[in-house]
Amino acid sequence: MNKYPQIGIKAATDGATAAAGFVAAGVVGGLRYGGRRDLGLLFSEVAGGTSAVVVTTNVFKSAPLLVTKETVEAGDVRALVVNSGIANAATGKRGFEDAYRMQALAADALGVEPGEVAVASTGVIGEQLPMDRVEAGIKDAAASLSRDSSGFAEAILTTDTRTKEAVATVEVGGESVTVGGVAKGSGMIHPNMATMLAFVTTDAAVEKGCLQSVLKEATDRTFNRITVDGDTSPNDMVLLMANGAAGNKTLTQGSPDLTAFEEAIEAVMRELAREIVRDGEGATKLVEVVVEGAESEEKAATLARAVAGSSLFKAAVYGEDANWGRVINAMGYSGASFDPEGVELYFGPIKVFADGEPVAHEAEEANATLTGEEVTVTARLEEGEASATAWGCDLTEEYVRINGSYRT
Amino acid sequence: MNKYPQIGIKAATDGATAAAGFVAAGVVGGLRYGGRRDLGLLFSEVAGGTSAVVVTTNVFKSAPLLVTKETVEAGDVRALVVNSGIANAATGKRGFEDAYRMQALAADALGVEPGEVAVASTGVIGEQLPMDRVEAGIKDAAASLSRDSSGFAEAILTTDTRTKEAVATVEVGGESVTVGGVAKGSGMIHPNMATMLAFVTTDAAVEKGCLQSVLKEATDRTFNRITVDGDTSPNDMVLLMANGAAGNKTLTQGSPDLTAFEEAIEAVMRELAREIVRDGEGATKLVEVVVEGAESEEKAATLARAVAGSSLFKAAVYGEDANWGRVINAMGYSGASFDPEGVELYFGPIKVFADGEPVAHEAEEANATLTGEEVTVTARLEEGEASATAWGCDLTEEYVRINGSYRT
Repeated sequence: MNKYPQIGIKAATDGATAAAGFVAAGVVGGLRYGGRRDLGLLFSEVAGGTSAVVVTTNVFKSAPLLVTKETVEAGDVRALVVNSGIANAATGKRGFEDAYRMQALAADALGVEPGEVAVASTGVIGEQLPMDRVEAGIKDAAASLSRDSSGFAEAILTTDTRTKEAVATVEVGGESVTVGGVAKGSGMIHPNMATMLAFVTTDAAVEKGCLQSVLKEATDRTFNRITVDGDTSPNDMVLLMANGAAGNKTLTQGSPDLTAFEEAIEAVMRELAREIVRDGEGATKLVEVVVEGAESEEKAATLARAVAGSSLFKAAVYGEDANWGRVINAMGYSGASFDPEGVELYFGPIKVFADGEPVAHEAEEANATLTGEEVTVTARLEEGEASATAWGCDLTEEYVRINGSYRT
Repeated sequence: MNKYPQIGIKAATDGATAAAGFVAAGVVGGLRYGGRRDLGLLFSEVAGGTSAVVVTTNVFKSAPLLVTKETVEAGDVRALVVNSGIANAATGKRGFEDAYRMQALAADALGVEPGEVAVASTGVIGEQLPMDRVEAGIKDAAASLSRDSSGFAEAILTTDTRTKEAVATVEVGGESVTVGGVAKGSGMIHPNMATMLAFVTTDAAVEKGCLQSVLKEATDRTFNRITVDGDTSPNDMVLLMANGAAGNKTLTQGSPDLTAFEEAIEAVMRELAREIVRDGEGATKLVEVVVEGAESEEKAATLARAVAGSSLFKAAVYGEDANWGRVINAMGYSGASFDPEGVELYFGPIKVFADGEPVAHEAEEANATLTGEEVTVTARLEEGEASATAWGCDLTEEYVRINGSYRT
């Protein structure tokens, strides 16, 4: 029986633990000020699953991220230890020692091998972890594991204003399979950088190589299609653990039900990605940019991302001004080649540009499509069947205040 | 005798006409509100020179820009007609007819062939030019040509707060050669886009192919290294006219004095580029990002541009916070590959990061390097001898207000 009959349910309080066999905890470890939760554990009580990870493309990579990548490549993890407050990035040799130590401490507390534990951190960079507090926090967390992941979802936040959890269920080989996840978005503290973390769990049984390719593709279509301010960080990570507790026949490349599973993974990650953008710093609107009729999905994504990331377009959305010039301009400098005469542009349902010229329309009607909390701009090319969606937010004075004036 | 003994003189009022033989005019043509100058002519009274042009890489290109590119490729121009107020972009077939008509009208007024006239426009896109006013303005301008280019420099502005002119002189083959120019930066009106225009003149005699390659390289090192908000526009253009009035032996690839000439061109264009950034919308600081020790200039430029263009870094500069994390972060996602452990980072003279870790320093000292109107951040790699500089500005609440809240 499906507890979650639809894909992409919001307001879940068990995003990371909805799938059978997963437990989680988030405790106050004293790494952040104000007594907020900052140390989390996520654990599959069922052994023998598989795992996959996608990490930042930034040349600078944090110690925990490199440790996790190495660990997932060498075997499979069934647990994750994560802290907020301190990113353990730009921390040199000691940073690596501490990341390995976190892994070992969590393994010890959970009764598994270090090679079964992923590690993640987010927060201030250039500061070393207070390992005594980390150690105590891990013990606390291990003692309070439960099927509610809301504390865990809180523990990974930095300056996010709310937790982000999503769950989906899907039939795979006659078995009901659950996919859930939690995420955090960009958060600024000094000195700092935005970090995106997402932890996805499923009780499906999935062959490891297949799981990795499902995660890679879903990441490309979700977290790699969102932009708050264009920056990636040394700590960005998406981890997927599949423990097989649903009892389905193990999914592999070519399994008939693989597509359904992929859709569930993508739906959960898309929901989390949209929540990250919606909670972007200073954001008041979620902006969805759709590019259709491209010759390839890659090109459509390049165009959509350029528009979603344009400061001028984002500022116009904030001003609720249907400034089509800024949209075609961003498409034009995206690096993708296309026929500029073959572009049709819509704000919501209102066609504003076609055949290289503005289309006569009431400015008020087009502007009215920007007044809500969700805004959609669509560009149609004439060259093929591929499409892609990117998500961004508006650029507000509050963004500048958060990121610029925080010292005054 | 050098009227301008140094390279890069500011506050010139004859930027476009300092070189022998050039005259200019800027008149009120009624294309902009408020009785501001909006129609300009720039003309070499000396025939037989050469010309070169670099235009936007944006897929969307305005009609005047395409007409000018075609004209300069087919022959050589000795005149330019330019208007502000309306960009003649996204104007379809009629836009092209009007651009050709502007060219013909200017040729007629100046007594030259249409093939000797470049055309440029900047301002609102998606609106057609009122050709009767353009025609009257061109006649006015032709009747008021002089050796003062300040009116011309005014006529090309949109929302720039001031004119931008620079002049340099240099010895070429025993002759004193003058290089001068005027420029405009990004200006926002509705619906709109930023447009960068620069018009450079010299009395040097330079072979056409050589002139084009000098212009291309100087553009790469100056206007292509500045960023206000990362957007290029359909109207961006740099035009260089060389009339040979200085009487030097014609410069060609391999001329011993070519380097000196290149330096003068680059100095004028760099000064104009810096003035554009300094006058960026809402900007309070000019930010210079220097990358040294790279294996290629291209890589150094990629890294420098990524830092100068990072919204997070720009907001930190506005907040006068030496947030080194945002600098290494932007380098990391620039797309350039490098050894992150081999990066040394400086705010002004203060070393803040090396060997993959923060360098102990007084935060106040580093922050103090950001309090002035000009800020320099330097990154040193360990891989070679190449360097590059990029220029940007800070990101302020005023930028958002100008570009987002202009309707309210």
